[in-house]
Amino acid sequence: MNVLVINAGSSSLKYQLLNPETGDLLAKGLCERIGIDGKFTYKPQIEDKAKLDAVDVAMPTHNEAIKAVLDALVDPKNGVIGSMKEIDAVGHRVVHGGEKFAKSVVINDEVMKAIEECNPLAPLHNPANIIGIKACQALMPGVPMVAVFDTAFHQTMPPVAYMYALPYEYYENDKVRRYGFHGTSHKYVSQRAAEMLGTPIEKLKIISCHLGNGSSVTAVDGGKSVDTSMGFTPLAGVLMGTRAGDLDAGIIQYLMERHGYTIEEMLTILNKKSGVQGISGISSDFRDLESAFKDGIERAGLAVDMFNYGVKKLIGSYAAAMGGVDAIIFTAGVGENSVSQRMAIASGLQFMGVKMDPEANKIRGREVVISAPDSKVKVLLIPTNEELMIALDTMNLVK
Amino acid sequence: MNVLVINAGSSSLKYQLLNPETGDLLAKGLCERIGIDGKFTYKPQIEDKAKLDAVDVAMPTHNEAIKAVLDALVDPKNGVIGSMKEIDAVGHRVVHGGEKFAKSVVINDEVMKAIEECNPLAPLHNPANIIGIKACQALMPGVPMVAVFDTAFHQTMPPVAYMYALPYEYYENDKVRRYGFHGTSHKYVSQRAAEMLGTPIEKLKIISCHLGNGSSVTAVDGGKSVDTSMGFTPLAGVLMGTRAGDLDAGIIQYLMERHGYTIEEMLTILNKKSGVQGISGISSDFRDLESAFKDGIERAGLAVDMFNYGVKKLIGSYAAAMGGVDAIIFTAGVGENSVSQRMAIASGLQFMGVKMDPEANKIRGREVVISAPDSKVKVLLIPTNEELMIALDTMNLVK
Repeated sequence: MNVLVINAGSSSLKYQLLNPETGDLLAKGLCERIGIDGKFTYKPQIEDKAKLDAVDVAMPTHNEAIKAVLDALVDPKNGVIGSMKEIDAVGHRVVHGGEKFAKSVVINDEVMKAIEECNPLAPLHNPANIIGIKACQALMPGVPMVAVFDTAFHQTMPPVAYMYALPYEYYENDKVRRYGFHGTSHKYVSQRAAEMLGTPIEKLKIISCHLGNGSSVTAVDGGKSVDTSMGFTPLAGVLMGTRAGDLDAGIIQYLMERHGYTIEEMLTILNKKSGVQGISGISSDFRDLESAFKDGIERAGLAVDMFNYGVKKLIGSYAAAMGGVDAIIFTAGVGENSVSQRMAIASGLQFMGVKMDPEANKIRGREVVISAPDSKVKVLLIPTNEELMIALDTMNLVK
Repeated sequence: MNVLVINAGSSSLKYQLLNPETGDLLAKGLCERIGIDGKFTYKPQIEDKAKLDAVDVAMPTHNEAIKAVLDALVDPKNGVIGSMKEIDAVGHRVVHGGEKFAKSVVINDEVMKAIEECNPLAPLHNPANIIGIKACQALMPGVPMVAVFDTAFHQTMPPVAYMYALPYEYYENDKVRRYGFHGTSHKYVSQRAAEMLGTPIEKLKIISCHLGNGSSVTAVDGGKSVDTSMGFTPLAGVLMGTRAGDLDAGIIQYLMERHGYTIEEMLTILNKKSGVQGISGISSDFRDLESAFKDGIERAGLAVDMFNYGVKKLIGSYAAAMGGVDAIIFTAGVGENSVSQRMAIASGLQFMGVKMDPEANKIRGREVVISAPDSKVKVLLIPTNEELMIALDTMNLVK
């Protein structure tokens, strides 16, 4: 079975063609500058097939982008399938499912309407996701499509974790609550952790650390998300590449009054100019920060230390929330690749049964246990694969 | 030695006369409606002396308020000292010492100027504290005075704890950083804990939970504050009686745009109408919430659960930050009096060595160990006494 996985943004579209039964990736790529000039990238994963890198393809709308994807996939010379009939289903990443979607769902008119109703909660993302779905529907009539939500995995959180301490009517009337994001990634790595440990996920308390340019930490108890660090929006939680994380609202008022900022300007600063970028003044990329620190730039080191410290505190807080922890997972760009940051985050957690294996930890991007054999809490490095999770959910719903 | 402790607000003034050598309280009371009509309360702690309760005393300014205090203290019939000469020093509570004051200090002209320079950081509190100091100076010439800052104890925090993930210039130019509050209380109870446990404070990792209408949790490592939950302002950290605690700034933008709030209106909501008051819609007082929940009002129970859950998560996060914890302290209104909330907060922390003694915990407002004898982490109930701490600091500086 082949599933086309689509992640549509307002002017871009990422795609992968996968076989969820085998886990095989057939091809992947990217459409960029949709509505502008159009650039198309195609990377077949089969030997002797040629790839395309940012070639010019006119893409006035997402429809032409999807057309370019399908043309490349079935191309007689460099395609990876014989015809469009070999695409059995399409899985769409949708950012926000609000409280309407606690799991992935086959798309029909009613579902489309419900996704649209979530637009106010993700005004930059959901409308683009919807455009991507409609483009696929236009070009692939009759092919079943599934929506997989970034928020759905976290809908199992109890009220004590998802409610904010605000007047209750903002929840009832305005839908203000913690939703959480990166759900597809946290779900995937926590399921993989259970498989790697050979323990039913129902019996595990897991803390999943998705650490990249956007970062979130999730408490997964018995396979269910019970708390997560991102909140109403993806700005919340731990500091990130350019995002500030949770904040004292008093700061917002103070800076707005001192500098005459509007709330929009303030949010742009908090979303785009803060995080490790803001502290270091150097970069939002942790690799740049590591080398800047080696060159003697103190604030680059401070930025990395603050990030590690924030993740460490979240691990402690979620262990307390669950009454303990059996496994800690590191995933995404930083989690998969930074040997030193994993070590720094896990250091000092011996009191709760975490003992790292510094040798085993010297690895990047592979599934491996990086805690010592006698560590009560297992620490795992698990590369995330949101596209495979989307393809698996899609397969399970349409087969 | 007798120390007069003064806590001056914009239209009120609390006072206590204490002997810090013995810990004895001689008298305490309150001046209210200063600048309005003036109400004076005086509670001598010596037998046969009559108290005054909200009697009319003209107080156009803080000077008349201080005059009323001194008159009452030396009153031939109901006073507790023979003359003003028996007041050896005055200790003033000052809310904000910025980065200028890492400890209490004898007040002189230079100190007054530095306190004034902190006014922008606490525009509602510091100017009132200064008025109180000046009134005392006018009426008690030659008596040494000491300023004791709510923020000073936290000045030992490392940058990783006090910096926000914002563009660095907001720290350099605008002094935006975590300051923390309730420092006098956290210092007092952590010193008492070391004394109760018979262990030098230098050897202890303590988590101090000051839980009242305003609440903060502090990590005290070796007697020094290394992290605390309140931030740039006292709005931050865990949810409180009417305060929201840390927040996703995305919510502020969303609600301001949806409801047309100004940032001032938004902050008023977050400071005065949120917290357990906002969630429950009932009260900011935990005793009211407990009885409302017994009457079947679910949201009253949710509010209390959210508060307990927030404190529990902070305990976990500070244990992780310090690499373990030896003692957890409960203090202030809720911490000293709520048997059920202490139990709820500590439950589920067995994994980190916390084992409560449910019988020992059935107590209010007394110094006592409430963990089981075999609990690795000691849990203590310690009534706070900020006035005594101020008097002790004052004595140590002037004697």
